[in-house]
Amino acid sequence: MNNTRKMILDGKIVAQAIYEEIKTEISSSSKKPKLWVILVGNNPSSLRYIKQKQKWAEFVGIEFELFSFESDVSEKELLEKVTFLNKDDTIHGYIVQLPLPKHINEKNIINSILPEKDVDGFHPQNQGKIVIWDDSWMAPCTPAGMMELLKYYKIDALWKNIVIIGRSNIVGKPIANLLINASATVTICNSKTQNIEFYTKNADIIITAMGAPHFLTVDKINPKSIILDVGFTIIDEKIYGDSDFENIIKNGNAITPVPGWVWALTVSCLMKNTLKAFKNRK
Amino acid sequence: MNNTRKMILDGKIVAQAIYEEIKTEISSSSKKPKLWVILVGNNPSSLRYIKQKQKWAEFVGIEFELFSFESDVSEKELLEKVTFLNKDDTIHGYIVQLPLPKHINEKNIINSILPEKDVDGFHPQNQGKIVIWDDSWMAPCTPAGMMELLKYYKIDALWKNIVIIGRSNIVGKPIANLLINASATVTICNSKTQNIEFYTKNADIIITAMGAPHFLTVDKINPKSIILDVGFTIIDEKIYGDSDFENIIKNGNAITPVPGWVWALTVSCLMKNTLKAFKNRK
Repeated sequence: MNNTRKMILDGKIVAQAIYEEIKTEISSSSKKPKLWVILVGNNPSSLRYIKQKQKWAEFVGIEFELFSFESDVSEKELLEKVTFLNKDDTIHGYIVQLPLPKHINEKNIINSILPEKDVDGFHPQNQGKIVIWDDSWMAPCTPAGMMELLKYYKIDALWKNIVIIGRSNIVGKPIANLLINASATVTICNSKTQNIEFYTKNADIIITAMGAPHFLTVDKINPKSIILDVGFTIIDEKIYGDSDFENIIKNGNAITPVPGWVWALTVSCLMKNTLKAFKNRK
Repeated sequence: MNNTRKMILDGKIVAQAIYEEIKTEISSSSKKPKLWVILVGNNPSSLRYIKQKQKWAEFVGIEFELFSFESDVSEKELLEKVTFLNKDDTIHGYIVQLPLPKHINEKNIINSILPEKDVDGFHPQNQGKIVIWDDSWMAPCTPAGMMELLKYYKIDALWKNIVIIGRSNIVGKPIANLLINASATVTICNSKTQNIEFYTKNADIIITAMGAPHFLTVDKINPKSIILDVGFTIIDEKIYGDSDFENIIKNGNAITPVPGWVWALTVSCLMKNTLKAFKNRK
């Protein structure tokens, strides 16, 4: 393995390892976990994402079912489906694929999902369990995937200075809380942070989740920083991360490639959450 | 007002303002909020704290009731009481005074409290609502009190570099999440943080919640830092904060005095949460 390859943190390899592990565990069980996906409308990106989820569910041995609503379904009807899924003991986990049409209040839907079946990890109770380190949580899948990546590459968060740029509900804040509990010193920056280099130049690990193409350049980092780039911006049909990958890899830093690693890990952690929900039930 | 007095951030004044505001609001309501406190055993500190809570509840017009169990009460019996309080519509909020005897699992008790009545703000759902900024939360009272202090003294968290030393479930982590959402750049340090001065010397606001007497000395801060000291350590019957108050105040920094400010604000926010629970019900 040459030096450059060693510097690439490959989420797809990590995801594959997670899939194999789940597959082995499920194959030895007489009952199978069951995952439902609720889709409203026919957003092409959502359909593509769901297809991937189905593919990997089938690979690991999770029963998968898609239930589609027309885009004009009422919030009340959707909530009735959620109530049905909460009560149905044969379904271990389910997600409501986001985004939802504007006439439906996403918060109302997410808050109605039974936390134990919330395999997307978006319910406030799951977010709160991360804060207080009650590991019966369902962690949101992207931050859970980052933790798997760090574990796979034996990057211990303990004693590390970690900088997170971006503070969304599904990436920045939950990964911050996970890393705080892993005994890292964590700085959460945002678009208003003054002199961001003060933090990034001192960081052992930098996580970018902004959607600001090539924001993170070599001059803003130190040669030992490890970069996890969750940025995802499409310009003229080309996908950009938040970091200047080409020059950062030349600089000798370890870094995740964009695109690919985030999505692979996110889907693998959705399967991992589904297995967890299944095992918690038993 | 002389210069030194201006530098003291007086939580008691802020708490008094909160009490007056709550009192005015309740006095114009025909129904009164009702707060229950469950006490197990007769820990002298707990009894002293509860007496203060009763005093201020009565001052603002909140009906207060204490229910005591013997220290050998079973977890099952305590959980039955919690279930009763969850169902009783006449009770708007309640707390189970901590610490509990060792034979009772605190987590089981806290997780059983109805989040809407959890005026201590310890339930994971309330912690999670802080993360995702769903302000129907009941925030834990000490961090909620710090936010009130900042508001009272017109210290805007926006654009500020804030350093939090300590990462407990009821202080460090919830205040971090509140400040992240207030658009501050927030660094959470812990006892394992290397070169902590790197962060503290750059901080606009430093929050210490460690229990390490006089850890924060003048040489670790910059002259403009505002210090919120939540430290509380008793040595030879004397109470110490985490900061070297005497020298820091001489240095011209704004700082909270230990003891007093934390406790006053914590109790006032317990009353504020009770009023909120009462209003949310209506």
